[in-house]
Amino acid sequence: MASPLAPSMSSALSALPGNLGISSYALEVNQALLKEDDDLLRQTFLSVFREHHPQLANKVDVIFALAQAWCLSESDSDFEMLEKRLEALTPDESILVSSAFSQLLNLHNVTEESITARVEKAARLGEVEAATRSTNKSLQRLVNKLGSKPEDIYAALCSQTVDLVFTAHPTQATRQSMLKKYGEIRHAMDRLHNTRLSNYERLETLDEIRSQIQGAWRTDEIRRRKPTPQDESREGLTYFHETIYSGLPVFLRRIDTALKNIGQPPLPLDAKLFSFGAWMGGDRDGNPFVTPETTRDVVIGARLSATSLLTDQVEKLMYELSMWRATPELKEAARLVQAKYSAGAEGSFLETKKNTYDVVFMSINEPFRLVLSDVRARLQRTKDVLHHCLEHSSMNVTEALEADPEAYRDETELLATLRLCYDSLMATGDVHIANSQLLDVLRQARTFGLFLCRLDIRQESVKHTEAMDAITSYLGLGSYKEWDEDKRMEFLINELNGKRPLLPPDLPMTPEVADVIGTFRMLSQLPSDSLGAYIISMSHTASDVLAVVLLQKECGVDPMLRVVPLFETLDDLEYAETAMRQLFSTPWYFEHIKGKQECMIGYSDSGKDAGRLAAAWGLYEVQEKLTKVADEYSVHLTLFHGRGGTVGRGGGPAHLAVLSQPPGTIRGTIRVTVQGEVMEQQFGEKESAFHTMDLYTSAVLEATLAPFKEPPQLWRETMAEMARISCAGYRAVVREDPRFVTFFQSITPVNELGRMNIGSRPAKRRSHGSIDTLRAIPWIFAWTQVRFHLPVWLGVGEALAKMIEAGKLELLQDMYTNWMFFRVTLDMLEMVFAKADPRVVKMYERALVDAELHGLGDQLLKKFDETERALLTVMKHSRLLSSTSTAFLQQKLQLRAPYVAPLNILQVRCLKVLRAIEAGTPVEELVPADFKPSEKALALLSRGPSGAVQQPFVGGVEDTLIISIKGISAAMQNTG
Amino acid sequence: MASPLAPSMSSALSALPGNLGISSYALEVNQALLKEDDDLLRQTFLSVFREHHPQLANKVDVIFALAQAWCLSESDSDFEMLEKRLEALTPDESILVSSAFSQLLNLHNVTEESITARVEKAARLGEVEAATRSTNKSLQRLVNKLGSKPEDIYAALCSQTVDLVFTAHPTQATRQSMLKKYGEIRHAMDRLHNTRLSNYERLETLDEIRSQIQGAWRTDEIRRRKPTPQDESREGLTYFHETIYSGLPVFLRRIDTALKNIGQPPLPLDAKLFSFGAWMGGDRDGNPFVTPETTRDVVIGARLSATSLLTDQVEKLMYELSMWRATPELKEAARLVQAKYSAGAEGSFLETKKNTYDVVFMSINEPFRLVLSDVRARLQRTKDVLHHCLEHSSMNVTEALEADPEAYRDETELLATLRLCYDSLMATGDVHIANSQLLDVLRQARTFGLFLCRLDIRQESVKHTEAMDAITSYLGLGSYKEWDEDKRMEFLINELNGKRPLLPPDLPMTPEVADVIGTFRMLSQLPSDSLGAYIISMSHTASDVLAVVLLQKECGVDPMLRVVPLFETLDDLEYAETAMRQLFSTPWYFEHIKGKQECMIGYSDSGKDAGRLAAAWGLYEVQEKLTKVADEYSVHLTLFHGRGGTVGRGGGPAHLAVLSQPPGTIRGTIRVTVQGEVMEQQFGEKESAFHTMDLYTSAVLEATLAPFKEPPQLWRETMAEMARISCAGYRAVVREDPRFVTFFQSITPVNELGRMNIGSRPAKRRSHGSIDTLRAIPWIFAWTQVRFHLPVWLGVGEALAKMIEAGKLELLQDMYTNWMFFRVTLDMLEMVFAKADPRVVKMYERALVDAELHGLGDQLLKKFDETERALLTVMKHSRLLSSTSTAFLQQKLQLRAPYVAPLNILQVRCLKVLRAIEAGTPVEELVPADFKPSEKALALLSRGPSGAVQQPFVGGVEDTLIISIKGISAAMQNTG
Repeated sequence: MASPLAPSMSSALSALPGNLGISSYALEVNQALLKEDDDLLRQTFLSVFREHHPQLANKVDVIFALAQAWCLSESDSDFEMLEKRLEALTPDESILVSSAFSQLLNLHNVTEESITARVEKAARLGEVEAATRSTNKSLQRLVNKLGSKPEDIYAALCSQTVDLVFTAHPTQATRQSMLKKYGEIRHAMDRLHNTRLSNYERLETLDEIRSQIQGAWRTDEIRRRKPTPQDESREGLTYFHETIYSGLPVFLRRIDTALKNIGQPPLPLDAKLFSFGAWMGGDRDGNPFVTPETTRDVVIGARLSATSLLTDQVEKLMYELSMWRATPELKEAARLVQAKYSAGAEGSFLETKKNTYDVVFMSINEPFRLVLSDVRARLQRTKDVLHHCLEHSSMNVTEALEADPEAYRDETELLATLRLCYDSLMATGDVHIANSQLLDVLRQARTFGLFLCRLDIRQESVKHTEAMDAITSYLGLGSYKEWDEDKRMEFLINELNGKRPLLPPDLPMTPEVADVIGTFRMLSQLPSDSLGAYIISMSHTASDVLAVVLLQKECGVDPMLRVVPLFETLDDLEYAETAMRQLFSTPWYFEHIKGKQECMIGYSDSGKDAGRLAAAWGLYEVQEKLTKVADEYSVHLTLFHGRGGTVGRGGGPAHLAVLSQPPGTIRGTIRVTVQGEVMEQQFGEKESAFHTMDLYTSAVLEATLAPFKEPPQLWRETMAEMARISCAGYRAVVREDPRFVTFFQSITPVNELGRMNIGSRPAKRRSHGSIDTLRAIPWIFAWTQVRFHLPVWLGVGEALAKMIEAGKLELLQDMYTNWMFFRVTLDMLEMVFAKADPRVVKMYERALVDAELHGLGDQLLKKFDETERALLTVMKHSRLLSSTSTAFLQQKLQLRAPYVAPLNILQVRCLKVLRAIEAGTPVEELVPADFKPSEKALALLSRGPSGAVQQPFVGGVEDTLIISIKGISAAMQNTG
Repeated sequence: MASPLAPSMSSALSALPGNLGISSYALEVNQALLKEDDDLLRQTFLSVFREHHPQLANKVDVIFALAQAWCLSESDSDFEMLEKRLEALTPDESILVSSAFSQLLNLHNVTEESITARVEKAARLGEVEAATRSTNKSLQRLVNKLGSKPEDIYAALCSQTVDLVFTAHPTQATRQSMLKKYGEIRHAMDRLHNTRLSNYERLETLDEIRSQIQGAWRTDEIRRRKPTPQDESREGLTYFHETIYSGLPVFLRRIDTALKNIGQPPLPLDAKLFSFGAWMGGDRDGNPFVTPETTRDVVIGARLSATSLLTDQVEKLMYELSMWRATPELKEAARLVQAKYSAGAEGSFLETKKNTYDVVFMSINEPFRLVLSDVRARLQRTKDVLHHCLEHSSMNVTEALEADPEAYRDETELLATLRLCYDSLMATGDVHIANSQLLDVLRQARTFGLFLCRLDIRQESVKHTEAMDAITSYLGLGSYKEWDEDKRMEFLINELNGKRPLLPPDLPMTPEVADVIGTFRMLSQLPSDSLGAYIISMSHTASDVLAVVLLQKECGVDPMLRVVPLFETLDDLEYAETAMRQLFSTPWYFEHIKGKQECMIGYSDSGKDAGRLAAAWGLYEVQEKLTKVADEYSVHLTLFHGRGGTVGRGGGPAHLAVLSQPPGTIRGTIRVTVQGEVMEQQFGEKESAFHTMDLYTSAVLEATLAPFKEPPQLWRETMAEMARISCAGYRAVVREDPRFVTFFQSITPVNELGRMNIGSRPAKRRSHGSIDTLRAIPWIFAWTQVRFHLPVWLGVGEALAKMIEAGKLELLQDMYTNWMFFRVTLDMLEMVFAKADPRVVKMYERALVDAELHGLGDQLLKKFDETERALLTVMKHSRLLSSTSTAFLQQKLQLRAPYVAPLNILQVRCLKVLRAIEAGTPVEELVPADFKPSEKALALLSRGPSGAVQQPFVGGVEDTLIISIKGISAAMQNTG
């Protein structure tokens, strides 16, 4: 085909979200709606608060009015009044006040999500120009503007798959039960706006919002114990039960409509636009609670969900497909079913009774119901086998499923039966019936099978090195650890080519090695369709990969999991190419992967040690290099993007992530992680689930059919130059400045974070000499609390300033306007600056940092301003978020500001007190004189561990601290 | 308390549904809405029909237009054109046409139900004056008009219980899957009218209606096999899952609001306004398919439903009750749960794993979730025990439940735990949370327990006589059958007083006796809270009752089921009093029943042998006599009303049934049966479920607190006189006229009814010499088909005419105006006349009855007219249904008329052909010359049993006949 004219940036730009797309009056509409809902929830919350704490409620009103006045006027006098009011609170009051503002922030987020969903629905109902490209739009665009032929679009869609991998994440601060309540509030809000309610039902709905708020308010919002991996897995599965499982077929149906609009047939039955993966219970990187049993439980749990979801669907079909017309093949199948249950009348008669024995008496005039009831019986049997496996943890799940002829091993047989029904209905002219629920079930069975989502396994490379070392030293082959790369490769390749077992049956193992070997053995017993990829984190050599392949071979994992190396730090990104080249040039490995390889590239850690810009650029280049190496060996490379949650770790709207990848690196397939609270935003509502699937589909379709032009050489050099400078600037402060670590520890609550048991991974106990020992998440999370987001922008200022000095301003502006990658990076920085608030940083510095470190503080604040100005100059924005596309976002931040301000002030207070205690000041000196807590206040103060033992004053301060941390974090996350 | 002034008839009358209540413009609104929806569904159906049968669709249009013209003009010329069109149909066409009109009738009923639900919702939203008294209204009325004190109302409500007993029934013609589709259509209709749909969603909804209609249309609407009792039980349970279980607490909540309006507190937690019973699987009267195993299966099935419904509720509570504040008692309970699961960590650790082991790590700060997760674990265990019982049919269910300490035997423990949570929330000031979902669950657990509904056992008295006879003759005590009543009583009382076992272990038994004894043995193993009453049908002596008590004692049924005698025929109604008096005077029995006795009075059979009027009056008197006897012995008597489905068997709006009972016979408690298709009408929708519960509550409340005045002596004598005359008139025709039986068999399809396998009870095979051997249902059903309803009005004419001759017209009119019983009886007769159509009867007579029997036909038709005129004179109506209260009903009948007419014409055609075949005319002569069915037509014609073997022409005629029977029956049922 004539190459489609590359989409000119301008037209792609015009379709970028935000400018021109969302017309100004649609913007006003959204702003009006957002404010209206925000007011409603705030009023309701305040009246709930007033009901339980009348006196305090008046203080909260005035605090809020003062916070608002300050946010608008920015005058110090308003600030002092606000501070004084907060100072005057007693410990139990400060718990309630901080909790109040934290709730208000969560409720505010609910309004944002509800608005997004409403805008979504409106867009789908097309009341305003869709705020983003729906697939429908992009098909039009591809046809009309980019002139690609509808048949090509159809072909591309049929072979396109977006693989979404759910990963729990450690900052998922709000508890499941709270999320539930907010979800209920959201549903009630939608009912309030979309259904014709009489005043009576309106009151019932307002009343329900109230009782959910009440419930949320009376719940201890601090999570008092650590979640287990199984908890995390279960929480992930709820999104399948609630939105994804039923939402997917509806989405595919709308794709069919969109295809119809460009004169194309519907998607074929076996098209797989989406598949789903999970890490919960498979990711053992730095999480010793993930044991082989955990993995087994999680796999069985997911299969149980898949089987019962499918059973529900089959039962609905049994009611709907009550037709008598059928093709001979179906009649034959129905007769066999009849024979099956009446022949061994006695034997199996007893068997099926367990769950209703009515198979016996269905007449041949209901052929569909006959075959479907057999399907249901076999699904039930599959469930029993799985339950059986749960009871006896030593049973091999795969064998158990294969051992029972009545149980389904996987979805193939089931799909064949459903197909038989489908073809029969199509043949007898019941086209309309074939394409309603049956089609949906076919597509669900196709996508979710009997596994629901595939579990990835993730482990650090060093663990495998130790395991290999334990083996080689035991066999007297020497110590694997001391061998250099070549010797390892030679050894591994021989073993892989050889037939001799390597793993001695009575190998003495340390618990770590036992866990590694145990995992591989477990994988050999789990059904392969429930497993995804084996990911090696911190990998930088080819042997890291082969070691895992060998260990799988030795432990009898068949079929083997594809091994995915994860390149995280900047250094790793450099070895990535050589490592892959070496692997592809190893004949054994080359024909082992059958022309398909997947590599994972991660954001968070690289950002930690080189700063954002350098990390982003490093990743950009590494993707190109890997794609090039893959093309040399004509291997189809799939890139697995581990994306962070909050913006801090490179989050931001999903499809931007797709379109900002190097052109040509996405060819119809992509894997992306969906993190903790991003799960709630992207799949909490059916509407947002549509929105998410819609974005990914159209983004991948475009990146495949009409990728952007390659960035010119000049841009790359400039970018490389800036990456180098920013990296140096970043490290100059973070590593070489001796004052930094103490500055960091005193201005942020990084040391106090350990107390919030968030996430199943154990928090590292050591107080750290340097930040190397600090994991990426707390590092960024800590800076988010003080509204400084240092790791995101540090070093960028120098890079931009140096380029501008060199007279490359025009060039940078050109890069911003015409290079998606650069634009997304700067937009994200703008967003971060919009959330940062230097006034708050100064407040933290004044209160918590020793005077002689203030030099560093002022130095960093100056960098902050310079970076902001440089950024705005490049973006040609007079002030932050000034383009209409971000006007909506700006309003969101303004609405949050008066809720966050009091939390920051309270946090500073708590940190001062807690550190005074740690510094040895006896508690009595810190307790205000007139502190005589009532019996109720006492109960409030002693919910926490320390509240119970030491005296309650400290308990109160700690709880306030934790609540403020959660509140601020809720304020900093940005909804879509 | 000063006796409240008896509600003057006029004020009670003013509150009667229909006059003055429903204002004329509300009536117009409903009529406009009904027509609109009827048009929509008809248009949609016709376009579906047109899609599959384009040519035939045009014929259906014209047939419909002609049918409409005829129904409006009643001119013979239109009738002939209609007849000619129908004559010209080929057999396969007549199947499709009859099926089309049958569908249109079902769809029409859907609109009626949807309107009722909408009027309901509107009433509850109070858009029009409520079409009936909601409880809210009646509370106002009781307070304001009848001056009873709010406290008394409260007291009465707290001790009031309405017991609704679900019984399958043999005319439930439309199949479950069809009912499902109609339900879906109804839901879609409501969405169409009540939700703000954009045009896109409007199309989706219209599209869904279309595909449901499509599904219904393409389904073989003839039920090809007989349902089993388990089927019937399962179909009954769906109403609990879909509307009753979740609807009840919402209803109770609205009662609380109504009580609040009269300044009373909410209902106490243990108030039981409703309890539910079932016959499916317990009623073995004339149904050999109901075996002891069947009963066991059904009991377990109901318990499984109850347990899983409760589990769902408990899980929702686990998310909602995440509060940390709790009373010490609750904290203690939570600690015990914690201890329970961490102590025997190993043993039970394994156990609970089966269904998520997360009990271990819940913190004490979530006391509610701790105790509730234990509840959930025990419910799960209860389910396992029940499943276990299902697998091993020899296990004793009660012992199995008691043997396992972790399983719940019944709801007492569970309620205690829920109470503990409730009291804790109330104590900590979380009143709002305590009274939301937790209150609902408390009320569900209270009403439905772990049994859901209690199963009644019903058996004929003769079966027990035979069982006793088998015992006495085997023991050589003589033949129980030949003993007279006194000897039986003496023997039974001795055995009951004695300790010696009577039942020999190796008694030789016939299958019938084995079934009787087997049933009693089974009852001794079933949990008593799943069992209701033991009903003896056809009972007319005290020994009938004692025999059952003895058999229970001998088979170890403990606690015993209360024995309820069913008095059905007129004669039985006379013995009822002596039988009960004799029982109460038997000291053993008297203190056995602990002052509580229940008697069942049935309608259907008494109507069959004495005609409607005599039966109604007989029942009226028997209730008074039984109540009087009970009062003499100060026994609290509960009357169990077995009410028929279609009007034929005394159906009609539920609460009329309550208010037309003799004053004072209802004291806070009533038991009523809910029949087959009445289930769908009264509980198919949530709105109609509210409507039903609302009606019963207020009707019983009024009948208890403000019963009507006793009817004066003069009315009773007149009524008795009329009963006597009508009975004579009825029997003069039905029994003494030798021509009647043949007339009956030729003008109605009574002999062809056997072919429709409706209901699990086997149809009697013998062609009957007289109608004695005919069961009540087919007897009435047959006359409904020809639109004559003879059994309902026969004999009433003579009675009324004789009274009018005696110059008692004024008296009758006074009775109609001021005596609820008489009024309901005449209103029901009016309704029947409105449905009857003599023109159709004449058509049947002309075509199917031999000429020399026409005399009888004309004679009966003359009686019909005389009765109608006499009726209208007494009611002072110028024509049928002329009062506004029935104007709505009249419109319904008018809308149905053009759908029914073609079905009657087709039915006559089929009967002529089938009888010609039976009379020996060879089939070939009847096959029209140009009958060359296409291959598709052939498939259509050979779905039935006879279609397959003999030649398809007959198959087509039979199917058309069956379809027309179902269609006409759908047209004759009257929705509320």
